[in-house]
Amino acid sequence: MPDSGSEVVAKIRDEAQGVYRRIQRKQKPQMKLPVRALSNVRYRPKAGYFQLRGRNKVRTLTVGTVKTFAQTLKMLAMSKELIGTGRHSTKREAYYQAYNWGEAAFGAQDESDTVMDDVEAMLSVNRERLHFRADEHGGEVAGELVVIDRDRRTGRAVEIDCTRFGSGAYSVPTVVEELRFRTKAKFVLAVETKGMFERLVEEDFFDRRHCILVSMGGVPSRACRRFIRRLADSKKLPVYVFTDGDPYGYLNIYRTLKVGSGNAAHLNEFFCVPQARFLGVTPDDIVEYQLPTHPLKEVDKKRATDAMKNDPFIRHYRSWQKAIEKMLDMGVRVEQQALAKHGLEFVANTYLPQKLGNVEAFLP
Amino acid sequence: MPDSGSEVVAKIRDEAQGVYRRIQRKQKPQMKLPVRALSNVRYRPKAGYFQLRGRNKVRTLTVGTVKTFAQTLKMLAMSKELIGTGRHSTKREAYYQAYNWGEAAFGAQDESDTVMDDVEAMLSVNRERLHFRADEHGGEVAGELVVIDRDRRTGRAVEIDCTRFGSGAYSVPTVVEELRFRTKAKFVLAVETKGMFERLVEEDFFDRRHCILVSMGGVPSRACRRFIRRLADSKKLPVYVFTDGDPYGYLNIYRTLKVGSGNAAHLNEFFCVPQARFLGVTPDDIVEYQLPTHPLKEVDKKRATDAMKNDPFIRHYRSWQKAIEKMLDMGVRVEQQALAKHGLEFVANTYLPQKLGNVEAFLP
Repeated sequence: MPDSGSEVVAKIRDEAQGVYRRIQRKQKPQMKLPVRALSNVRYRPKAGYFQLRGRNKVRTLTVGTVKTFAQTLKMLAMSKELIGTGRHSTKREAYYQAYNWGEAAFGAQDESDTVMDDVEAMLSVNRERLHFRADEHGGEVAGELVVIDRDRRTGRAVEIDCTRFGSGAYSVPTVVEELRFRTKAKFVLAVETKGMFERLVEEDFFDRRHCILVSMGGVPSRACRRFIRRLADSKKLPVYVFTDGDPYGYLNIYRTLKVGSGNAAHLNEFFCVPQARFLGVTPDDIVEYQLPTHPLKEVDKKRATDAMKNDPFIRHYRSWQKAIEKMLDMGVRVEQQALAKHGLEFVANTYLPQKLGNVEAFLP
Repeated sequence: MPDSGSEVVAKIRDEAQGVYRRIQRKQKPQMKLPVRALSNVRYRPKAGYFQLRGRNKVRTLTVGTVKTFAQTLKMLAMSKELIGTGRHSTKREAYYQAYNWGEAAFGAQDESDTVMDDVEAMLSVNRERLHFRADEHGGEVAGELVVIDRDRRTGRAVEIDCTRFGSGAYSVPTVVEELRFRTKAKFVLAVETKGMFERLVEEDFFDRRHCILVSMGGVPSRACRRFIRRLADSKKLPVYVFTDGDPYGYLNIYRTLKVGSGNAAHLNEFFCVPQARFLGVTPDDIVEYQLPTHPLKEVDKKRATDAMKNDPFIRHYRSWQKAIEKMLDMGVRVEQQALAKHGLEFVANTYLPQKLGNVEAFLP
């Protein structure tokens, strides 16, 4: 197994023993957590993601912190138990399981979520390896990939051939830590909408271009990002991203996939996909392919202008600044399905092949 | 193939010939469409879904209707062409393809969506059979089911064994008209959240109870509803529904799945699941299983009170009225994951087996 959980259990044990030892020495027990805020983040192009600057806060046991302190320790214990049984708990199930913690029970789920985030940051381990998961969509996959999972009933490996789903797809589970992969594909193509994903499946695109199609369904969930990351890392595959040509596609989808987000900086290490490159739709494509457009909304303009000023990723890349400036100058956005103006098959027969012929021109 | 499209093409041809004949007779061409509004709907318990009362509007070609009239005919032609090539077009792609219709091009996608709805209602054929599809999530499936789809490249049947996805699942495509099924399962269990779906997969529930699990992901999409309907019809399977115990679960999810919705009454015939029965979580379960609850919000109370007054489905069933009254009296809602208070395995080992031991007690 790629992740038996023993490493995580060892971290939990260390943390608990640290607390225990201080108590035995009659010292106040402490836990150390990184500060999770944009101000504690920087973009490291070499590492490829937003990183924490390393500032920590120390939570010492006092009358004021006693409840959170107890909750954090109980959350560590719950994780250890889950790893032991092989079960995973959703964030919501964790909140309800904590109903039995007496005075340490949570008043609402956002309290238990915060403690879970703390534990994750404290151990530098993503939540999924602690056997906690979100109630979210993991994305869909079709293409030249065999996913190797485990049949819980028999413990045996089960091979999932993603070329054999007809018009359907493989739905990625919320926890992908133990999946393994076998593939001869040349690249991963991550697509914004299910509509475009199904278009490419219908056009036999993965077969003709030897690739793996992933439908992100808008901003990719953690599960979807982690899946792409693990797949791309373990199989040394390039990742190309195909979204609408608007600030949402460039920033909320692509930038989040590639380098992570500011307010979850303690996680970006696990969830970013540094090998991702942006295929389109770019503002240049609008001219090149004479695509129908829509005017930018005020919220689009604001998002783009903010990114030019404040987003460390955009500020790092002159080519992204130029693309966003061009979009603002033109005053329009473009949807990936606008390519259908030239016929449904145009995207698979003309647009993507032309783009893929010049990968060096992709935005970074 | 269960749906070769020839029946739909015949309907399109009939419609076009009707127009053509009137023109040849020097009459103004006409198209007849059912009125799509709540006021033209009734609940027919025997049929099992909201039905149109049969009022029609007639669209005659005049100076005022010429553009819509042309668009409707062009949309029929587009559908006929799609059926011919075997391709499907998303609603958005259809809008962009219509960019080339000259003066009949649409100003915005909601205009083309409306014309598509008209065509659907006019022919009494659901959009998917016209080879149009939405850009939506189709739900996920795991359990004792083999889905039989077609490999587009070879034209051969492809068998998808939904027991063999490990921790993942089969993602339902947006068009399910041509899928066939093989199963020995005893029932379909449609679940509100992906979190609960993954819980039941992790507990080997489909294996132990010989069933098919479907994750609806909130209010089920058309594709998800149509999938359950076709599966349940063709394999004569009962469908049990498991949602949160709140007005959203009872009305927006369960009622929509079972009988359809008011403003899409021309479609309910294809998308409703009349064989669905409501397993839980019921207000009675809160007491029976001592579940943690949350107070009803104002919006919950309003939705419940409105349904008691105006929803033909609720007004038809005394047992549903009693359940909703009880919920309003208690003033609380309950989430399906609240069962985790008694341990993660409680839902699979205790709650569902007890409920399934008394199917007659399910709400209708």
